[in-house]
Amino acid sequence: MSVLIVGSTALDSIRTPHGARDRLLGGSASYAAVAASFFAPALMVGVVGGDFPTRYLSLFRRHGIDLEGLQRRPGRTFHWAGEYESNMNRRRTLLTDLGVFAEFRPDLPERYRRSPFVLLGNIAPALQLHVLRQLEKPRFVAADTMDLWIETARSELLELLRRVDLFILNDTEAAQLTGESNVVTALRRLHALGPRFVIVKKGEHGAILSSRSGMFVAPAFPLARVVDPTGAGDSFAGALMGRLARGRGPWESRLRRAIFYGSVVASFCCEGFGLTRLDRIQLRDIEARAALLRRYTRI
Amino acid sequence: MSVLIVGSTALDSIRTPHGARDRLLGGSASYAAVAASFFAPALMVGVVGGDFPTRYLSLFRRHGIDLEGLQRRPGRTFHWAGEYESNMNRRRTLLTDLGVFAEFRPDLPERYRRSPFVLLGNIAPALQLHVLRQLEKPRFVAADTMDLWIETARSELLELLRRVDLFILNDTEAAQLTGESNVVTALRRLHALGPRFVIVKKGEHGAILSSRSGMFVAPAFPLARVVDPTGAGDSFAGALMGRLARGRGPWESRLRRAIFYGSVVASFCCEGFGLTRLDRIQLRDIEARAALLRRYTRI
Repeated sequence: MSVLIVGSTALDSIRTPHGARDRLLGGSASYAAVAASFFAPALMVGVVGGDFPTRYLSLFRRHGIDLEGLQRRPGRTFHWAGEYESNMNRRRTLLTDLGVFAEFRPDLPERYRRSPFVLLGNIAPALQLHVLRQLEKPRFVAADTMDLWIETARSELLELLRRVDLFILNDTEAAQLTGESNVVTALRRLHALGPRFVIVKKGEHGAILSSRSGMFVAPAFPLARVVDPTGAGDSFAGALMGRLARGRGPWESRLRRAIFYGSVVASFCCEGFGLTRLDRIQLRDIEARAALLRRYTRI
Repeated sequence: MSVLIVGSTALDSIRTPHGARDRLLGGSASYAAVAASFFAPALMVGVVGGDFPTRYLSLFRRHGIDLEGLQRRPGRTFHWAGEYESNMNRRRTLLTDLGVFAEFRPDLPERYRRSPFVLLGNIAPALQLHVLRQLEKPRFVAADTMDLWIETARSELLELLRRVDLFILNDTEAAQLTGESNVVTALRRLHALGPRFVIVKKGEHGAILSSRSGMFVAPAFPLARVVDPTGAGDSFAGALMGRLARGRGPWESRLRRAIFYGSVVASFCCEGFGLTRLDRIQLRDIEARAALLRRYTRI
């Protein structure tokens, strides 16, 4: 089954201790759609400007991503520039030029509206809600977010949370939204806001899935070399939804497997700048690393 | 088989966001011996002063800990006082009064020297080496350490590392000792220093075991309420060695199981001040939580 992915499409200029790259393909929808495409057909909704390089459109097409929902507008593509500190755990934004993204209105093409699996990638909660309203009986809806929206659009975010199946956020955002630094307690408070499934991402330390029936403590794949962590969270969410769309059985066990694959794909993402590494791997590489991670976690 | 545990025995005054307690039973040997005692007979080597409360000796005896190696000297017992910040991830030492511990020389009673399993808890590397020299053909020796020794006794620590089977340290210490903040790379450098097994502890994020045949990514038990993390690392190491002493088969798989139990016991440790929670549980409580953690990690 297919996965509809809505989010940002951007050009990223990134500096890490391993080097610097200018105007890479970036944005939450780009990472998530490529990551999802290994497992399921991905339909993308985003917006790019007249300066968006053709080679990036080719990259999307090479991964079989449906681009009918990718809007092309006169103007500049969203451009973000950032820099990572030596241990990769903190990043500094150097530039945010919204360009055509400032006026982004994620209107879905007719045939996108019946998508069974939907990932509302990190964009303003009001836009995520706008997408929700256009959907016709989706089977499973996941939403990601970021610190900015928790701070500036809390009421829309809370409205959104009452209407999604899965909410994905990182540990810092979970503490920010709930006022609770303990992850287990934060998870309880997040459930009370609506979603029956919540995933708290912990970067190199893995992730925790929480549901009414308990928790799943998911490992991260231990990497010797992190070149660029940009997009790791979006790749995690995209791969997770792709794998979920392909699964069978009860949601809980499907989600566990999906998170495991999300971790594996996110680890590939970190091994290169932007999407360069994900663009070069295939499902068999993901399966090989998943087998290794299974070995690393077997008691 | 029995486990010999050498380390500090102390009185700890601790303040955390959940309250404050004065002159609790503490020290690396105390935590490790109680934790090991759930799985195997524990023999303890440490030193206490004339002020050491009888009730703490009773506690050790209640857990069946062999105290022939616990030296009693005129003077004050090692007293440490510390305070945790709100998120429990940083602590501040308020007082360190070494007392009789300043002159501690861990001489082993005759019958301790043939101990098959040995945990060199966190004390000066010169003292850990002194214990090593008295041992007669131990089967498995593990050593713990702390930032202080990496800074002030690096050459003795390096000598020790050439002679132990397992080296246990936390992620900060691993970075400090190797100059490498990436855990996977740090692990490789630690193996090059001697030990065929290395465990890097990551607190609430679990631990990673590394050996020539690969890695084991061990989960931590997700706790809703951390009352006092003091001694969690020592409890982890003690339980690990106790479980290892009871196991069978190849070291690699025995160690995986042992680490898993180490995590579980450490989680109990954090639920009360000092040793109060560990003192009140039994093996069946540990088994119940181990079963839950297995459920939390099953894909």
